[in-house]
Amino acid sequence: MTDVKTIAAGWEPSRISALRDVMETSKIDVLVIPRWDEQQFEYVSLANERLAWTTGFTGSWGLSVVTHDDVVLFIDGRYPEQAARETDGDWVTLQHLYQEPPEHWLAQNVQAGWHVGFDSEVVTPDLYDRLRKVCEQNAAVMRPTDADPFDQCWSDRPDTPSSAVRQLSAEWAGESVAEKLARVRDQMRVSDVAWLVETQPDNVNWLLNIRGQDLPYCPVVRARLLIGLEGEIHLFGDVTDTDSERLASSDTAVRCHARNEFLKTLERTIQPADRLWVDATQGPQCGRQMAEAAGGEALMLRSPITDLKARKNETELNALRSACLSDSAVWVRLLHWLESAVHHESVTELGVEKRIHQFRTDVEDYTAPSFRTISAADGNASLAHYSAPADGGATLKPSTLFLLDSGGQFSRGGTTDTTRTWCFQKPTSERRRLATSVLKAHIAVAQQVFPVGTLGHALDSAARLPMWQAQLDYDHGTGHGVGHYLSVHEFPQRMQKAGTAVGLQAGMTLTVEPGFYRADEFGIRHENLCEVVSHAEGWLGLESMAFVPFNRLLIDAGMLTPVERGWVDEYHQRVREKVGPVLGDEELIAWLEAATEPLSDE
Amino acid sequence: MTDVKTIAAGWEPSRISALRDVMETSKIDVLVIPRWDEQQFEYVSLANERLAWTTGFTGSWGLSVVTHDDVVLFIDGRYPEQAARETDGDWVTLQHLYQEPPEHWLAQNVQAGWHVGFDSEVVTPDLYDRLRKVCEQNAAVMRPTDADPFDQCWSDRPDTPSSAVRQLSAEWAGESVAEKLARVRDQMRVSDVAWLVETQPDNVNWLLNIRGQDLPYCPVVRARLLIGLEGEIHLFGDVTDTDSERLASSDTAVRCHARNEFLKTLERTIQPADRLWVDATQGPQCGRQMAEAAGGEALMLRSPITDLKARKNETELNALRSACLSDSAVWVRLLHWLESAVHHESVTELGVEKRIHQFRTDVEDYTAPSFRTISAADGNASLAHYSAPADGGATLKPSTLFLLDSGGQFSRGGTTDTTRTWCFQKPTSERRRLATSVLKAHIAVAQQVFPVGTLGHALDSAARLPMWQAQLDYDHGTGHGVGHYLSVHEFPQRMQKAGTAVGLQAGMTLTVEPGFYRADEFGIRHENLCEVVSHAEGWLGLESMAFVPFNRLLIDAGMLTPVERGWVDEYHQRVREKVGPVLGDEELIAWLEAATEPLSDE
Repeated sequence: MTDVKTIAAGWEPSRISALRDVMETSKIDVLVIPRWDEQQFEYVSLANERLAWTTGFTGSWGLSVVTHDDVVLFIDGRYPEQAARETDGDWVTLQHLYQEPPEHWLAQNVQAGWHVGFDSEVVTPDLYDRLRKVCEQNAAVMRPTDADPFDQCWSDRPDTPSSAVRQLSAEWAGESVAEKLARVRDQMRVSDVAWLVETQPDNVNWLLNIRGQDLPYCPVVRARLLIGLEGEIHLFGDVTDTDSERLASSDTAVRCHARNEFLKTLERTIQPADRLWVDATQGPQCGRQMAEAAGGEALMLRSPITDLKARKNETELNALRSACLSDSAVWVRLLHWLESAVHHESVTELGVEKRIHQFRTDVEDYTAPSFRTISAADGNASLAHYSAPADGGATLKPSTLFLLDSGGQFSRGGTTDTTRTWCFQKPTSERRRLATSVLKAHIAVAQQVFPVGTLGHALDSAARLPMWQAQLDYDHGTGHGVGHYLSVHEFPQRMQKAGTAVGLQAGMTLTVEPGFYRADEFGIRHENLCEVVSHAEGWLGLESMAFVPFNRLLIDAGMLTPVERGWVDEYHQRVREKVGPVLGDEELIAWLEAATEPLSDE
Repeated sequence: MTDVKTIAAGWEPSRISALRDVMETSKIDVLVIPRWDEQQFEYVSLANERLAWTTGFTGSWGLSVVTHDDVVLFIDGRYPEQAARETDGDWVTLQHLYQEPPEHWLAQNVQAGWHVGFDSEVVTPDLYDRLRKVCEQNAAVMRPTDADPFDQCWSDRPDTPSSAVRQLSAEWAGESVAEKLARVRDQMRVSDVAWLVETQPDNVNWLLNIRGQDLPYCPVVRARLLIGLEGEIHLFGDVTDTDSERLASSDTAVRCHARNEFLKTLERTIQPADRLWVDATQGPQCGRQMAEAAGGEALMLRSPITDLKARKNETELNALRSACLSDSAVWVRLLHWLESAVHHESVTELGVEKRIHQFRTDVEDYTAPSFRTISAADGNASLAHYSAPADGGATLKPSTLFLLDSGGQFSRGGTTDTTRTWCFQKPTSERRRLATSVLKAHIAVAQQVFPVGTLGHALDSAARLPMWQAQLDYDHGTGHGVGHYLSVHEFPQRMQKAGTAVGLQAGMTLTVEPGFYRADEFGIRHENLCEVVSHAEGWLGLESMAFVPFNRLLIDAGMLTPVERGWVDEYHQRVREKVGPVLGDEELIAWLEAATEPLSDE
């Protein structure tokens, strides 16, 4: 089966020559190739793994610039090692996506008169502006490509199979499409726009109450929308005639077009002086360009759907809670099996990943992992985004400190994401101390009360401040949004060090996942998916939806305050009460009861 | 003596008519009048109190828009009550500066063909861009005024007396002008600019190692700079010939020009294709405009001087520490006097303000208050930026909860800013509980360890998170930067709820000042000026430079953790050890010893 690894593994220099031939024919001196495609999304279809085809790099984010002489790959802080391993240093130069961004490189290397080619359906207004500025300063020109250059040079390009559109009821979603659309159009009216360009697949699927299987990990139909303030909604995707008819006959009358009709329809539809809403960092430059060409204007703000989707309704929350509970039972089965297996059989990292997937398949509505499971023993757990290799990876030993970060998609309406760190015999007191510090950070966020509208960075601090007192820190965010049977990385809610302008509201769902890592030795992370709940008038808190025991061997009860200890005992009691009845197996229940006993003082 | 209150008090409708006459002669339909002047600074000279003259409003920040029919005053959240009291509602409409900003108002009210007049030396590039966008959309035109319209309509406009320039030695500043300039030019070289426009008075005075008395509260010479990458530095201000000669003959050869030579010199100096550095929010639009008119470009980032100035050297820190210590002794005298006076004489808010000023004048190098003292009894302390009225304000009673926020300028190189909340008899247990909560928030920040480069919002959270647990909050920042015998509000370092992109570094100086307020009843704030100090490799902490006792009656020791209690006792011990020897008065020392005893359990 072709996958992105196969595409990357087939990399050879002739690909670059072939790409340069197309560039020459098209009179392009520089070609800009982002990882993302015309949906501006974290996941792309196999046929759009252009970055992997061009460079051999398989990471989830990045961008390449190809010229007559250079191939430069821009990657973020997660990927320097992986990119160095996957690419050929004789051909590909690595740069940091944020510290040495493409526009800096271009400023030094672009020559007067050069044409900088880009796909205006793929490149965002934000990226376009940064590149154009440099071009102007250097008398170069930004030039949209007429067609996808990869059509002409990527010979064995895979198909983009498209799945059936699953239409879901208002009962399933908690709100009808008509109601959602009315709320979106209210926002459009307030902002005085005639059209909204929506390319984020999770936004599109949320709005239309549909799901599909067009992408790995995220159960969506790949499609873009052009939403009119009045009657019209145009959808651009690869949907079958049957699905088109169904969507057209629904009460919101979606008109389906072929995927490649997007530009033409946009051009035909926008009237002079129309204002058009296009997301500056998660939307396409072509939208802005079309609006301006028509004599109108683009409003470049975050899509209103991103914000509406983030606040889950009660139906969505119930489905998420229920899926998290089912998944928690899977976790209990896994941990029970693992604690014994480590001592009695050869268990590899990949083996654990397969096993939790297998346990999940026993849940009737499980459809797929919600991301590639991180099953990492000892030093491997210190690598961000590690995944077990095809040969199985490390074998777990009784002395292993093991990190498992895994989640699933459940079609009742749930996306899950949990991390537990586990050991199988008494750990060193230092490891226990560090794991307890991370647990205290987790509790600090979990029990924090905060005003409505608190910015995510304040809760990030809640986790980090107590760790900083012991001069401990971790180089990732404290939490990210999670969707309702959608993306496991959902915007705009998040908890991170950097300042955010998004206020937290009741009904948002986020992970809480502080950690601590020591290179080549171990990684520790404690992650639960939580919902934001109302506390008192004007005040919010978090409530965990995941109920999985924390490893007792890694908790030093003496380090916990009475409040923290109470939190752990109460959480474990809820794990027992909620998950116990779901297990239906005496041995499992006994294991769970032992795992969730109140902490003791030894 | 004329002051801003006198200018405001003299407001009458005829001023608006006179202004409109000038606008008509100049063919201007809208005039934009910011509070700030051509220095883009918080403090302006009396002659530039244009906003107060036009509207009657005396607040420290705001902006007015005058048209044929309207006078609109835009103010921030601190000033709605004051603005309503100070302005005539028949003539002046109030709007929120951020929630309903001038560009929104303009979008609804500007008519096609209108000329929107602005002073390009006053308006910032950031404000200009926001207004221009709206003008373009409405077929109106932004038009720089040829001269200051107020010259023609403000008949009794005060003079702008300029003080002598006090040149300070490298020993006093800890660094020579040449060394500072070399560091600034390094930044200019890296950013590839030929010229830097510097208008912030504190930046100018810091760079040239000069001080003056041109502004209230901030001991600076009002002057602007045009700094060349190579030899030339032009200064624009009202300096005497003697001072000009001195500055010209110094080793950095500053060329002095009359204040109004700025535009002409800028125009003459910039060469085609020169890049010019101008601060987008604290610099003038004319700089950008001139660069672009010459065929060059403006780099619109925060001035490099703002960042260099923020990290104090050891000489600057020593002077600040020493001034804080002198001022702490003033505070001890004040509190000792106050505790007795409240019971035996009639003490008004204004009386306390005068008294602390009087005690400060006994310190040899005290030159002025560093801001208008907030001396506020009971409900008055719940008003942001309260100042005691000329009639004395409230009289303090034994039952009063009193807030005093006060600081001074000391020419050895110190700017101070301290707040204490005091009561004179046993307070209610609720007030004690609330004051202790605020103290816990103060301690949380004061004892926090954090990585180098931590963003200010993380320390803001350190104060707020424990208060949020009790559903308490306050509507101002947790801390602001303070200068070295410069502005008591110094950028860019700060601790606030909103995200900031400025990383904290050793040598920065900030206040720590959480609070709690109940309208019409009381205000509580505990403020110390702190320096950022190195802890261990890569880690920072804060160290207080102010040593003033916290009111024991307002501390509920039972609410403190052992760590917090230890912090209070240790702080008080340091107060006793450091301030005691400075007092030189047995009665004062006895009072201080009692005030700094370890906390007891009652």
